[in-house]
Amino acid sequence: MSAQPKSVTAAMIIIGNEVLSGRTQDKNLAFVAQMLGEIGVDMQEARIIPDVLETVVASVNELRARHDYVFTSGGIGPTHDDITADCIAAAFEVKLEKHPLAMQALQAHYDAQEADFNEARQRMARIPEGASLIENPVSTAPGFKIDNVYVMAGVPKIMQAMMENILPTLKGGETLSSITVTSSIPEGSIASEMGALQQQYPDVNIGLYPFYSAQGAGVSVVARGRDVAQLQAVETAIKAHLATIGAPLVDRPKAIASQ
Amino acid sequence: MSAQPKSVTAAMIIIGNEVLSGRTQDKNLAFVAQMLGEIGVDMQEARIIPDVLETVVASVNELRARHDYVFTSGGIGPTHDDITADCIAAAFEVKLEKHPLAMQALQAHYDAQEADFNEARQRMARIPEGASLIENPVSTAPGFKIDNVYVMAGVPKIMQAMMENILPTLKGGETLSSITVTSSIPEGSIASEMGALQQQYPDVNIGLYPFYSAQGAGVSVVARGRDVAQLQAVETAIKAHLATIGAPLVDRPKAIASQ
Repeated sequence: MSAQPKSVTAAMIIIGNEVLSGRTQDKNLAFVAQMLGEIGVDMQEARIIPDVLETVVASVNELRARHDYVFTSGGIGPTHDDITADCIAAAFEVKLEKHPLAMQALQAHYDAQEADFNEARQRMARIPEGASLIENPVSTAPGFKIDNVYVMAGVPKIMQAMMENILPTLKGGETLSSITVTSSIPEGSIASEMGALQQQYPDVNIGLYPFYSAQGAGVSVVARGRDVAQLQAVETAIKAHLATIGAPLVDRPKAIASQ
Repeated sequence: MSAQPKSVTAAMIIIGNEVLSGRTQDKNLAFVAQMLGEIGVDMQEARIIPDVLETVVASVNELRARHDYVFTSGGIGPTHDDITADCIAAAFEVKLEKHPLAMQALQAHYDAQEADFNEARQRMARIPEGASLIENPVSTAPGFKIDNVYVMAGVPKIMQAMMENILPTLKGGETLSSITVTSSIPEGSIASEMGALQQQYPDVNIGLYPFYSAQGAGVSVVARGRDVAQLQAVETAIKAHLATIGAPLVDRPKAIASQ
């Protein structure tokens, strides 16, 4: 049994009244969490908060102290309700200034479109002092990184492109592998045995996820861990138990894969 | 101008490693927030947290002190990783006991299916002392309410059914109305004017939401407020400005509607 390595952790802050009110469905958390999972960074909490300065400042300061990385999405556009850059500057107690490289890139972007690089659009060049820019290949207006906080757009296509740029710069942790076994039986019929299996393999994390679809209901048992041999033993034990009770396996992708 | 009524606020806690890891996409926040919006309850923050006792207890205690209502989803099934009931009992420092009515309903449910009401399934009848049950017409295992905390299932179909049962028991606040004007122009081209409009109408909340779809890009301007006459004035002003700059209106539903 190997010594427990220090895990690398992250939190995400989704900023926007439109997500909180249910008008917009967030899709950014799942994308960021999966991408981080691939390099062994563990998403440990996420918050969805309104465009309110005090709330954003408090959340950023609480979470950046607690995690290796904090990712934010939303609120860096040109409008009066885009206040994330102001909030981050306030959280770090630094000035917010128009960044020359951001000004240059945005000027060129709007010139090329023959559009006006107006005062509202210049808001998007305001970057907290000491931050470095995160490139935005979709619509030019950059995100930025300050200390361990990564500030990204809310529009998924832009956020995803920024995240692709950020990922190679992050220091990952040890990655987990996972196995999934899916059967068309109710989770309650195997819950006790899976609980016992969890106790038998404390270094593996076993979760049961029921599903209900047009094709029928069932449960996926997902086991995650570092030791592939242990995961294979767990998979064998799950399948053996399902065979014993005559529960059919059904296809849902994912064999041993990086989670 | 009417005196500012006390607003009724809510928070949501989404419990589950599978949502945090990106394996499962949460759909419950949007549903709950929209339903609450219809009765004038304002969703002010949401957290997505793992199945970890200390984290759930701390989040519940922090948010129930701060909001009129707290809603949780996830972690009330039959498996070893379903620990929400334990967490709520710990947060309120009360015992967790098998509730006779829940036991009875579940026994009848599994009898009818000729399925075993085993020890794992009996876990779903464990309810914190002093809590009242929230009926589950989909799969019987109840949610529960203790003080201002409503504990619901994570499976959307079940959560929605529980929420339908909860809604008539809540005390709502004053509802907001909203207008939406959508145009196929970039948000940056009207951001300054909309910011000025916001200053002119401080009692109305004006937000700009850019969109990018296969049909093209654009921006929806959404104004929310209590005073319908003010909202109509804001709508007229937005449309007048769009007409001035020759920006076409495009169809996206929602006239003056309860948000």
